[in-house]
Amino acid sequence: MPTLCKPAVSVPEHVITLEETLDLARDLHAEHPQLPLALRLIENTGVQTRHLIQPIEETLRHPGFEDRNRLYEAQAKARVPAVVRDALANADLSPADIDVILYVSCTGFMMPSMTAWLINSMGFPGDTRQIPIAQLGCAAGGAAINRAHDFCTAYPQANALIVSCEFCSLCYQPTDLGIGSLLSNGLFGDGIAAAVVRGQGGTGISLERNGSHLVPATEDWISYDVRATGFHFLLDKRVPTTMEPLAPALKDLAAAHGWDASDLDFYIVHAGGPRILDDLSTFLHVPPEAFRFSRSTLTEYGNIASAVVLDALRRLFDEGGVPESARGLLAGFGPGITAEISLGHWTYDTASAPAHTLDTAQVPRGLEPDSEAEALV
Amino acid sequence: MPTLCKPAVSVPEHVITLEETLDLARDLHAEHPQLPLALRLIENTGVQTRHLIQPIEETLRHPGFEDRNRLYEAQAKARVPAVVRDALANADLSPADIDVILYVSCTGFMMPSMTAWLINSMGFPGDTRQIPIAQLGCAAGGAAINRAHDFCTAYPQANALIVSCEFCSLCYQPTDLGIGSLLSNGLFGDGIAAAVVRGQGGTGISLERNGSHLVPATEDWISYDVRATGFHFLLDKRVPTTMEPLAPALKDLAAAHGWDASDLDFYIVHAGGPRILDDLSTFLHVPPEAFRFSRSTLTEYGNIASAVVLDALRRLFDEGGVPESARGLLAGFGPGITAEISLGHWTYDTASAPAHTLDTAQVPRGLEPDSEAEALV
Repeated sequence: MPTLCKPAVSVPEHVITLEETLDLARDLHAEHPQLPLALRLIENTGVQTRHLIQPIEETLRHPGFEDRNRLYEAQAKARVPAVVRDALANADLSPADIDVILYVSCTGFMMPSMTAWLINSMGFPGDTRQIPIAQLGCAAGGAAINRAHDFCTAYPQANALIVSCEFCSLCYQPTDLGIGSLLSNGLFGDGIAAAVVRGQGGTGISLERNGSHLVPATEDWISYDVRATGFHFLLDKRVPTTMEPLAPALKDLAAAHGWDASDLDFYIVHAGGPRILDDLSTFLHVPPEAFRFSRSTLTEYGNIASAVVLDALRRLFDEGGVPESARGLLAGFGPGITAEISLGHWTYDTASAPAHTLDTAQVPRGLEPDSEAEALV
Repeated sequence: MPTLCKPAVSVPEHVITLEETLDLARDLHAEHPQLPLALRLIENTGVQTRHLIQPIEETLRHPGFEDRNRLYEAQAKARVPAVVRDALANADLSPADIDVILYVSCTGFMMPSMTAWLINSMGFPGDTRQIPIAQLGCAAGGAAINRAHDFCTAYPQANALIVSCEFCSLCYQPTDLGIGSLLSNGLFGDGIAAAVVRGQGGTGISLERNGSHLVPATEDWISYDVRATGFHFLLDKRVPTTMEPLAPALKDLAAAHGWDASDLDFYIVHAGGPRILDDLSTFLHVPPEAFRFSRSTLTEYGNIASAVVLDALRRLFDEGGVPESARGLLAGFGPGITAEISLGHWTYDTASAPAHTLDTAQVPRGLEPDSEAEALV
């Protein structure tokens, strides 16, 4: 059974507090008729600190899409490898053990993708599969976990590396003055996360079932306007209400698994904003503390897009994990509106399990198609 | 065993011939010191006609990245559905039967992706998985086939829809005057292709094994420079030589399957340019006619990026297919330098097989993880 191991997370060194964000908004938008509303919305996010790849003075400048995208590439290459190394160490694996890299990021665009650079520069095998995804936004963390689950289901001896690299501050657009943009300017932060899904062994969430759900007719609720100045993030005011149509999808997937989504042992969900967590608590009938990992991510890092679910899961690990066989739900939410949902039991790798004694020479590297699975066809 | 069914292909109505391309190059670059070389390189591509989404006069104008990307979106929404309907018909399936959509395109950027729009507008189920890939370039057609293969290996009752939408003419950059750019201006065309990978039943390539291969230290051979004016395609002069390091990867994958890559019954490969096909013929020791499907695509449509392999396969179907159990190799090549390779036997669905009698009510829609596969862990 594929197991999602402990994520590694890194946030940049430049910190901006809620007070500094509010002061900045007052300075930059003193004449804005909706300034009071913007300040109230930003305060309501509960985001106390965010981490940025540049000092705030640099962040506020827009040097053009070309320079920003070059900065994305330079910063990703500088910051991602250490996080990947930590994620591999958390899973007791080395680059040679990885069969597929899922790299998710909606805040920069490179072709070839960072997957090629990681393979070349970190010693991943030349036959490592590359799955770069740029267009699923905040849902991409959940999507990466689910596609890694699928891959390890097809090839039970495979291991998947997930990397989420989100420099949301590079999408700051000084000319965007709508209330959604002002709110976003106080909500999003930068962060990098990585995690391994092991096909065998490992401590973490034993991935058992996954599902996607698209809410009809909501394509324009969260979107990018692609312009010469780069990606302009558009956030509709209806977005905070999306848990009402999405909660039933979580319940349905849990029910298909024989579980009650209201009665699970742990919850790891995308913290797009505080309303999402409050509403999930209401619609799923679970106490707010169930979402404490997601809320801590939001409070300390802001919305770090596709990296949120991995950081929230890291916090659960840091808290000491949960008992063996605890049942949990993980969900990413993002543009579409799309939910990527995952269900699984917590599992502990024992000292004698493959995670700690793995002799890679004994594990055939070739991804033999699963003949048992094919026999069912 | 997952089967890649007959692709549907559509090219736009605006045609430009080789002679018109050469005349244009002479007009636009009369003073260019390398014009004679550019003309010779363009002639050597063997591309006789290309199809464009706009008349050439419009194509030569650059209205800005924003307008171009809006045009990409409008044209994709106008042109993709008919191709998808044909691909579904080729596989005897309806939208309700599809479990995952792989949408590959490197010539426009949308978030949410076209996957969300297709689900909303064409009646695909709300739980259809979305895998949009923008950063694998010409290799993405092969990657989509391979990821569809993986998905149907994990969930043997699933069906995957592959869509490749490439409007290369929207990446024309009038200010790019390097020899690689002048060549590209005469090489690339526009095209849309779609195909279904059926988990059960279907006529086409029974997908048995796939593999990726990244050629070390070639990241800058094919790349995008991302600027305010959009994607600038950079083509290094060493690219035509890539079959020398890639041919061994094709041979190795075939050998792992117990096959000799020099002695297969059919070949479907990316026709990046004529040298690729000539070199493959040399390095694999197979006659040039083996690549006639790819060469026809190149001659009649130009390099249509990730859609090439699907169009070449469509031509094999149109020729009448190959005998039952014929052994074949399919390969996409693109930035990285990356190869995505697939091996399989040809299979015919008989009248009594599921493809023609499929009662979808009897096929559980839920993607039950393959318990047989999991039992192996």
